Amino acid sequence: MAIQRLAAVFGCRPTEPAILTLRRMSEPSRYARELMHRSRTGQMLLDHGFAEPDSMSAQEHRSAVPIPQREIVRLETVAEGLVDQHRRPEEWLDGVRAALAEAVRQGAVGIKTIAAYRSSLRLRWPSPRETREAYARLRQGPRGQGGHPRLQGEALCHPLLFTAAEECIRLGVPLQVHCGIGDLDEDLAESSPLGLRPLLVDEHYAGLRLVLLHCYPYHREAAYLCSVHPDVYMDLSLAVHLALTDGARAMREALGLCPWSKLLYATDASRLPEVYLVAAQLQREALATALGEVVERGILDLPEAVEAGRRVLSGNARALYRL
Amino acid sequence: MAIQRLAAVFGCRPTEPAILTLRRMSEPSRYARELMHRSRTGQMLLDHGFAEPDSMSAQEHRSAVPIPQREIVRLETVAEGLVDQHRRPEEWLDGVRAALAEAVRQGAVGIKTIAAYRSSLRLRWPSPRETREAYARLRQGPRGQGGHPRLQGEALCHPLLFTAAEECIRLGVPLQVHCGIGDLDEDLAESSPLGLRPLLVDEHYAGLRLVLLHCYPYHREAAYLCSVHPDVYMDLSLAVHLALTDGARAMREALGLCPWSKLLYATDASRLPEVYLVAAQLQREALATALGEVVERGILDLPEAVEAGRRVLSGNARALYRL
Amino acid sequence: MAIQRLAAVFGCRPTEPAILTLRRMSEPSRYARELMHRSRTGQMLLDHGFAEPDSMSAQEHRSAVPIPQREIVRLETVAEGLVDQHRRPEEWLDGVRAALAEAVRQGAVGIKTIAAYRSSLRLRWPSPRETREAYARLRQGPRGQGGHPRLQGEALCHPLLFTAAEECIRLGVPLQVHCGIGDLDEDLAESSPLGLRPLLVDEHYAGLRLVLLHCYPYHREAAYLCSVHPDVYMDLSLAVHLALTDGARAMREALGLCPWSKLLYATDASRLPEVYLVAAQLQREALATALGEVVERGILDLPEAVEAGRRVLSGNARALYRL
Repeated sequence: MAIQRLAAVFGCRPTEPAILTLRRMSEPSRYARELMHRSRTGQMLLDHGFAEPDSMSAQEHRSAVPIPQREIVRLETVAEGLVDQHRRPEEWLDGVRAALAEAVRQGAVGIKTIAAYRSSLRLRWPSPRETREAYARLRQGPRGQGGHPRLQGEALCHPLLFTAAEECIRLGVPLQVHCGIGDLDEDLAESSPLGLRPLLVDEHYAGLRLVLLHCYPYHREAAYLCSVHPDVYMDLSLAVHLALTDGARAMREALGLCPWSKLLYATDASRLPEVYLVAAQLQREALATALGEVVERGILDLPEAVEAGRRVLSGNARALYRL
Repeated sequence: MAIQRLAAVFGCRPTEPAILTLRRMSEPSRYARELMHRSRTGQMLLDHGFAEPDSMSAQEHRSAVPIPQREIVRLETVAEGLVDQHRRPEEWLDGVRAALAEAVRQGAVGIKTIAAYRSSLRLRWPSPRETREAYARLRQGPRGQGGHPRLQGEALCHPLLFTAAEECIRLGVPLQVHCGIGDLDEDLAESSPLGLRPLLVDEHYAGLRLVLLHCYPYHREAAYLCSVHPDVYMDLSLAVHLALTDGARAMREALGLCPWSKLLYATDASRLPEVYLVAAQLQREALATALGEVVERGILDLPEAVEAGRRVLSGNARALYRL
Repeated sequence: MAIQRLAAVFGCRPTEPAILTLRRMSEPSRYARELMHRSRTGQMLLDHGFAEPDSMSAQEHRSAVPIPQREIVRLETVAEGLVDQHRRPEEWLDGVRAALAEAVRQGAVGIKTIAAYRSSLRLRWPSPRETREAYARLRQGPRGQGGHPRLQGEALCHPLLFTAAEECIRLGVPLQVHCGIGDLDEDLAESSPLGLRPLLVDEHYAGLRLVLLHCYPYHREAAYLCSVHPDVYMDLSLAVHLALTDGARAMREALGLCPWSKLLYATDASRLPEVYLVAAQLQREALATALGEVVERGILDLPEAVEAGRRVLSGNARALYRL
């Protein structure tokens, strides 16, 4: 399916070899630029925190891709990088606060947590002792990529998340939370956004803007949260291009409870430039079908639906991230 | 969408100001009566237990709205009103039994619990000590509307619910349980009807008729319970008018496992008379679409589907509540 | 609906009495053979472990039904039959290993667990002491059909399941797990396939091929597991003929994430020969609709979809069970 779509863009034969030949014969950054251009992306919000040795840095990416870019800071990456400098968890969390503030000062427009990959999303406050012991073990433990320890478990990930939430409020930036589908690291049973309830009902976090990423198959639950909490937003990024027909159905389901002012457009594209284009097309088609259903049932009229589509595709994100 | 529907009823322009003008210029109870009449409601089952200072009493409502009405008793409201009279939880629960029996004697046709708003629906028997201590705290605690304490937590809500279930069996009335979507008070993660299993498998509760209200997004789970337990019923009241296109889809999904003899029609309309009409229309349309699908797939023929629709819209409720 | 389908096969009037008369007037095994023949079943995988006094044995079934048959061993039935011979749980589990190996030597092609009926599917290792005590109680407890004790609870069912998983790897046969809908014995809240995670991430179980049976309403979760774990497969057997319109929808939903090489065709038919035919038809129709959607959205072209259908209907099972 991706093959057909790419072939249509490049005007080549719809076969894998034809696409690969074309790719090999193109100057890489120009090839990528072409795909991005076709995806009609006006501005990109990028999380560089999963960086692998051969990934581009934020700077390299900016010079390679001529589309305005803003950064999203990956909380756990920042936090892992600070473990060696701090002997006690309180100091470490303070260090994280400072680093997040500095990132935002330098232009980052949001913080993203991948706690679902490292622990459960059913948030709770561990005892200070649990956290202290887990932190001591972390400092002594094995090192991963970049020589940093790998953060894991509720005793560290939850206090970190609560701390980041406080800091997001103070800095005025949204907190993105990976929910639902992901890769093997994650226990899907523990990744429902409903587990974030402490951030939503505790007065202490009033004003926190939460963005639920991916969400599938908990998209109805996410849509419910968007409908009752004024500051919760969602996207279906991974779902739409991974679950395909059912990803599009998930968007129709989500638009039941989720107000169109709360749904965001995102592709979760990263390494492969092809994904930028294909995922963008699939998101738009899924959105068109979902809004079509809403019009058919007489809930919105056509101009309202067009306006809703525009907001999902850019207006909502512009307002949320103050772009 | 509600605007269009109301304008069609009143023959005015489909704009919010036009409706509001019309509303202000009408005598309130006449305006409400008109909307109720158009909703083609034959009989109403009303829960007056969420009463606010300016709510009508059951009596006032009966004289204002010329549609036969029967009462549903809200368990937690009754129970809160009895706390001050009883020093020990056993006495309090006995008092609740007596009050429920009296309400039924006076014409109430069912008991409704909003335990999902006050604790988890994953039912368990707390220890007597937990209950005793929680009850003592409740009696000393702050007072809410009407000067009554606010019931909360499993240690009190679950024994109350188990007691009410026993009493429902004895009195021969159904127990309605709020499940799934609701407002901020509720933790959606804890409101699946599957948590009611102790009431369904313990022989002690044989003969209990359970009505699962709202259910979304746990409507497939609710439909499953309806399919395996002879005395379980469900409705999708809030879902259909809150989730709109997806509420209608939820009804199609529920009619997979839920026998049409177990699905009930309900609107959950309360304060705004407009909701009575709009929710009634949406329920009927959702039902029509769902039954249409069943006919299309050759599962029912048309006369059977019409009969099924009739039962959902009134026959099932008449039989269940012995109206 | 079943009536119409059976009448179409037999050329009789589409009424229940007409079908029943025809049935009474037919020689039973010939009647059953006719239905099986019409279901176009090429080979059957049968679990004889739920045997009731009047059930056919594997041998009797083989001679009555002229379709090639292979056996699936029901883990809990085997294990219950061995309790009296072993005083300690370790010995009992060793006995189970030997019995499974012997069954496979005699031609069984898979092991099936109904742990969901006897405990939770949220797998965990109980302490040796819990298991020891539960086993002692089991040996002293009441006897069920066949004079065997009834296995129940995590302390026994989970170690049994982990043991069977090891043995499946060693024997090179898949482990089937009943997930999702079933009967009253089961707590649906505890039967999500996501609870099987320890079998999927622990290196110890590398190479284990897992088949998730039924799955509904956790079919999206099951499909997710199929998409990220190379050795996980699923079917929607009970769902399609119990949930009818919504069973077919569940297949469309499952084909979002589940690769077509991982979806299996199954009917879960047992006692009533009519179910073999009707369930087979419904499975095929649901599959056709689901693949139709995939073609419509341009994800597969028609020849690819036909090939995918062929694999679901037989190729996948042939490869998985090495038939």
